[in-house]
Amino acid sequence: MCQLLGMNCNVPTDIAFSFEGFRMRGGLTDRHTDGFGIGFFEGKGLRLFLDDKPCAHSPVADLVNSYRIKSTNVVAHIRKATQGHTTLENTHPFQRELWGEYWLFAHNGNLKSFNPPAGKFYQTVGNTDSERAFCHILESLRNRFNTKPATDVLFDAVRELTEEIRAHGMFNFIMSNGEMMFAHASTLLFYIVRKAPFGQAQLVDDDLAIDFSQVTTPDDRVAVIATLPLTANEHWHQLACDELALFQHGDVILRSLPENPVYLSREKGLEIARSQGVGY
Amino acid sequence: MCQLLGMNCNVPTDIAFSFEGFRMRGGLTDRHTDGFGIGFFEGKGLRLFLDDKPCAHSPVADLVNSYRIKSTNVVAHIRKATQGHTTLENTHPFQRELWGEYWLFAHNGNLKSFNPPAGKFYQTVGNTDSERAFCHILESLRNRFNTKPATDVLFDAVRELTEEIRAHGMFNFIMSNGEMMFAHASTLLFYIVRKAPFGQAQLVDDDLAIDFSQVTTPDDRVAVIATLPLTANEHWHQLACDELALFQHGDVILRSLPENPVYLSREKGLEIARSQGVGY
Repeated sequence: MCQLLGMNCNVPTDIAFSFEGFRMRGGLTDRHTDGFGIGFFEGKGLRLFLDDKPCAHSPVADLVNSYRIKSTNVVAHIRKATQGHTTLENTHPFQRELWGEYWLFAHNGNLKSFNPPAGKFYQTVGNTDSERAFCHILESLRNRFNTKPATDVLFDAVRELTEEIRAHGMFNFIMSNGEMMFAHASTLLFYIVRKAPFGQAQLVDDDLAIDFSQVTTPDDRVAVIATLPLTANEHWHQLACDELALFQHGDVILRSLPENPVYLSREKGLEIARSQGVGY
Repeated sequence: MCQLLGMNCNVPTDIAFSFEGFRMRGGLTDRHTDGFGIGFFEGKGLRLFLDDKPCAHSPVADLVNSYRIKSTNVVAHIRKATQGHTTLENTHPFQRELWGEYWLFAHNGNLKSFNPPAGKFYQTVGNTDSERAFCHILESLRNRFNTKPATDVLFDAVRELTEEIRAHGMFNFIMSNGEMMFAHASTLLFYIVRKAPFGQAQLVDDDLAIDFSQVTTPDDRVAVIATLPLTANEHWHQLACDELALFQHGDVILRSLPENPVYLSREKGLEIARSQGVGY
């Protein structure tokens, strides 16, 4: 259905390089032609760009690339609708406020028969399984905690909710409050942590290379999370099936790994997606 | 502190002409140089552009002008901060979800000693009086109505809340759920309803004219609301001090007018704003 991109850093960082490759999958090198969304946290503020035009040809995407917004947390999503018309209200990432913070959520997958009861605090605006999952997570967290709990307590709560929701189907997601970033894999999700010594990277989807040592300081740490690796010459780590990871300040700080972790090949991941009616 | 712009129509309409004049007040013809925001409803979906750059020189504003998004409800705001640094989280319009709909709110004014208790459903992310007012309105509505009430009931509830809040100071605001648009004046707020037969309009702030008969159909109806009239050769209606109006399908459908309505001159309005520490 879609591809995910996340970035979590210890200093505000320009995502243009990663986004350049990612957006190429929106209609040029791939067939994600049903819109996209990208949200940038800047401090407590949030700038969310949504577009129902193909990402590779979108003026909004052009702006994102030329404007060079620096952010510590970015969540992006390219959509290939498996069914139905793409409308703005069904475009990821979704945004809500919880505990006086904005939260963003983007999902790649397909949840079947997932119809949690209508929330008291959060209701869906569109009609996707993804927004239902996001609202259910926030509703459950808000019911359980009046204020934001300690990070490990929050992680355990999100883990429990993730286990409940993924019983309904494929549930790759990225979620952030501008400070930390949750990433969960049902099938395919990769990440890389870039830190000193920085080297050169070459995009898979575009004839573009960057020497990160020229645009970083030795203290910078940048984690990039994506459905499939964006660069050809770097080592990307794969999240295991059913693994939940929490990123902060550009690195993994907590993870919940199944006892016998399974890592899908790209081919197997795409096959499962197809069998669930999810196109990448 | 800022200027407001709203548009409410019966068919999706391009706001580019009005926005062109409005944005000129963001650093060229006026001194609104602390960022801006504009939100477009498209069906149930919402596209919100926020920028802490001066509006007249903002690449986001350029995009808005060139992208020609058609919308039935638009809320925009140019900010001149009276104090403090402008941050993204304090940039209007503010966005929340209520009853499964997105709501936008933009405020021009200054509320003193307005500190409602922390909400159960809505909390502020930034630290403006404006976001506090918005959250208080939504919190009160959500507490009172589990689902969206009839329009006249909702209007009365918003009127009561407006009376409570404006006791704290200047409270010009525009609020919309993508279907209807509330507009309240403490000092200066004007509107115009354009419908057939359409004529020509000339912007106050720019050397730009448009012949609306060339870009409309006879059934179109478009209400534009602004802090000060945007065109020189049309008759704009002024909201009285303490008047609340509700627009739907491009016209006023409900209004609450004080028994002895007072209409401020532009000069008097600006004087009051200055005396409250609010710069236009």
